[in-house]
Amino acid sequence: MSASLPIDPERQRLVNAALLAILPERCVLSAPEDTRPYECDGLAAYRQLPMLVTLPDTEAQVLAILNLCRELNVPIVPRGAGTGLSGGALPLANGVVISTARMNRIVRMEPLSRVAVVQPGVRNLAISDAAAQHGLYYAPDPSSQIACTIAGNVAENSGGVHCLKYGLTVHNVLRVRVATIDGDIIELGGESLDAPGLDLLAVFIGSEGMLGIVTEVTVKLVPKPEKARVIMASFDDIVTGGNAVARVIGAGIIPAGLEMMDRTSVRMVEPFVKAGYDTDAAAILLCEADGTALEVDEEIARMTEVLSNAGASAIAVSQSEAERLRFWSGRKNAFPAAGRISPDYYCMDGTIPRKRLAQVLTGIAKMEETYGLRCANVFHAGDGNLHPLILFDANKEGEFARAEAFGAAILALCVEVGGTITGEHGVGVEKIGSMCVQFSSAELSAFHAVKRAFDVHGLLNPDKAIPTLNRCAESGKMRVSAGLLRFAHLERF
Amino acid sequence: MSASLPIDPERQRLVNAALLAILPERCVLSAPEDTRPYECDGLAAYRQLPMLVTLPDTEAQVLAILNLCRELNVPIVPRGAGTGLSGGALPLANGVVISTARMNRIVRMEPLSRVAVVQPGVRNLAISDAAAQHGLYYAPDPSSQIACTIAGNVAENSGGVHCLKYGLTVHNVLRVRVATIDGDIIELGGESLDAPGLDLLAVFIGSEGMLGIVTEVTVKLVPKPEKARVIMASFDDIVTGGNAVARVIGAGIIPAGLEMMDRTSVRMVEPFVKAGYDTDAAAILLCEADGTALEVDEEIARMTEVLSNAGASAIAVSQSEAERLRFWSGRKNAFPAAGRISPDYYCMDGTIPRKRLAQVLTGIAKMEETYGLRCANVFHAGDGNLHPLILFDANKEGEFARAEAFGAAILALCVEVGGTITGEHGVGVEKIGSMCVQFSSAELSAFHAVKRAFDVHGLLNPDKAIPTLNRCAESGKMRVSAGLLRFAHLERF
Repeated sequence: MSASLPIDPERQRLVNAALLAILPERCVLSAPEDTRPYECDGLAAYRQLPMLVTLPDTEAQVLAILNLCRELNVPIVPRGAGTGLSGGALPLANGVVISTARMNRIVRMEPLSRVAVVQPGVRNLAISDAAAQHGLYYAPDPSSQIACTIAGNVAENSGGVHCLKYGLTVHNVLRVRVATIDGDIIELGGESLDAPGLDLLAVFIGSEGMLGIVTEVTVKLVPKPEKARVIMASFDDIVTGGNAVARVIGAGIIPAGLEMMDRTSVRMVEPFVKAGYDTDAAAILLCEADGTALEVDEEIARMTEVLSNAGASAIAVSQSEAERLRFWSGRKNAFPAAGRISPDYYCMDGTIPRKRLAQVLTGIAKMEETYGLRCANVFHAGDGNLHPLILFDANKEGEFARAEAFGAAILALCVEVGGTITGEHGVGVEKIGSMCVQFSSAELSAFHAVKRAFDVHGLLNPDKAIPTLNRCAESGKMRVSAGLLRFAHLERF
Repeated sequence: MSASLPIDPERQRLVNAALLAILPERCVLSAPEDTRPYECDGLAAYRQLPMLVTLPDTEAQVLAILNLCRELNVPIVPRGAGTGLSGGALPLANGVVISTARMNRIVRMEPLSRVAVVQPGVRNLAISDAAAQHGLYYAPDPSSQIACTIAGNVAENSGGVHCLKYGLTVHNVLRVRVATIDGDIIELGGESLDAPGLDLLAVFIGSEGMLGIVTEVTVKLVPKPEKARVIMASFDDIVTGGNAVARVIGAGIIPAGLEMMDRTSVRMVEPFVKAGYDTDAAAILLCEADGTALEVDEEIARMTEVLSNAGASAIAVSQSEAERLRFWSGRKNAFPAAGRISPDYYCMDGTIPRKRLAQVLTGIAKMEETYGLRCANVFHAGDGNLHPLILFDANKEGEFARAEAFGAAILALCVEVGGTITGEHGVGVEKIGSMCVQFSSAELSAFHAVKRAFDVHGLLNPDKAIPTLNRCAESGKMRVSAGLLRFAHLERF
């Protein structure tokens, strides 16, 4: 938990006056009662009151703000809806927040090309709502989809429960229009399968607001599947459940969703949601098929067979759309349910190779004893993206610190088995220390060099996502790369 | 066609001696009879004898060559099998070619994880051959797959006739190990769906050898479909055929392959291959379904219905694997067939939005008159990737120049309708002028900045893929970005 730094009132007056000279009054917030809602994102343990908040209505205003901040050397923190879970939108005491929430217009729907062009502040679900009349939707569905914005999704490369089959944001965004810190507008990507030049679209997606401000996004729309059904399978032990996931994928099936919950999660959720979950099972697996009726029935039959052979102790298949939604309701309400049984929880976001699921779950169970805290495991099993929920009480002396240490240990285990420290929530401020574990100094230097290519001034969301080499060295986590020969030219890269 | 520049013999002796001090003799070629095979790639109109050719056996040797070249300020041209079609591997008179052809070992097959780890010089088809015993294969299938190497595929982000459904190289490569010009080894990407930090893997794939030398590639393997069938549909006019492509995709079908050939191509191929094509049709469409037997039969029925409704004048469906291969044989032999009826041909590679197919084909037909040359259209219709084959005779005064102008006009039309100047063949030296049409100065500056982030010395494949701003300005093609406000800080970016 970080202490909020004080704001320099003179500097605030100066920058505020300069902003008001170029923007309408409604677009600049400076009073603490107005800026307070921006002091944190979904990772509320980290808070900082921003010096100023700007709410541009147009791309021209975004460019004007960027030009002004560059000239006055003011750091910038971009913000969508503030639903992020890694502190990526944590403000700075000497910085300006640029919220794109007001640029929330759907510019164009092209049902025949299956494309929507939207402003950055359009909510994820609003795109699907607008596309519904054409039988289409926008596939990535993060849990926060009712609130989170498309530009925030671009910043974090958001996923969702269907990303195993339909991909992450990077697989569903065709083009972004970006205002650079130098005051240029550049367009990255295009509607073709490939584009000439370097693939800067992919670098931009997931760059956590460090490379530019999104002013427009072109997304791919996909047809709503005719039908969907979900299997709920129970397992008597978590290792068998973890191995069943590998067996489903190994059989050549890509389910529309493949989610797992352990007993702690199931028992946490069931009294609250009444999803009909098997509370005796060590773990349950939700396994969805979508497509035409014929495809769905065939895939459900194949998945049922694979899960039986993999040792499922019970299998139920949704017999109606209402039952399908009920099966999902438990999974989708896991986070609120955690809030119901524990004063606080800390949601982790590591990924691991599928074949390591059983090993990592066993490791986390051991850590519960080490750190004296409970952990509920809810995860996107199909793509190996874990969301361990560490339950703690911030009012109890030392529990937050222990929860943070428990979280870091989980991420270190993820890296150890060949995984990564974040699946879809981003690095932000939360996991910046774990980046030293994940990457070598040469790899971090490559990240910094690309960051400088877009933002030589270092003004866009500074000190997030990529740790400095100094920071890694000081924390004692600096990793030497696996190269056969090593020539460190750190200054130069 | 470019004139070959002379090699400075003194410089050649110096660099040769330095290389022989660190490499075995078999790894360095300097005599013109040995270096001659490296003077061009598949775009044979451009030729240049390299100063020296190196053939490293190991990653350590690659690093040693890079360190030496950096210290002696020698430019480097990386090379796979030399099958590229845009001159990306065209050597330099003062440069060293690094061919990774000898690093051709399959390091590891992991059938359960569906992953193969291979050295850079492994041929595309060799991966699928090695994976076949596990019922798996590597999906991207460029026409040159029997010869081209995986590192070349990475450099060009290669596609193939199945990329509509299975994606390009960028969608099928999980990780690359890269030797940087600074002598570091970095690993980009990973086996998870998403990775923390900037997505440098995507930027690297398709970067045409400008960012580093690939020393190892981890690719995704996919299960061989149980069955495949192909529809051959005839159309009386090309506009109806073009619209039928949009209708198939519009119906929510993603065929495994969706290829179109115009009458010129069909009549060029049929006498040579005897594929059974309809030589009276204005265009034919090949439309493939793959999957389980049930899925294939259902998809073939749906596609047949859509194509009939879209105005197909005749429809045939392959009744056996032999017939399916015969239907494809014409398409796959289009390039050799062009060589049979015309002394020379120039293969273009533009992409366009699918809905513009009919408009662009009509435009190309008009250009045939303007430039006095014939053009056969063969293309990946599903993803709007055109391969117009401009037929000419290099021995006839002015025909090559007219073919080049015809090609540039086709690419300009592609950009005009919202497409791009290359689908899968890369920019290389061939299309570097067209990049000025495609991108604004701010966008080109962003490319250069990222290039510098990896190669501040400018030694890796210089003067390829991304034109300098000066070059664009001199050619009169500099495009001002579409921004509402423009602040050009070209020096700074």
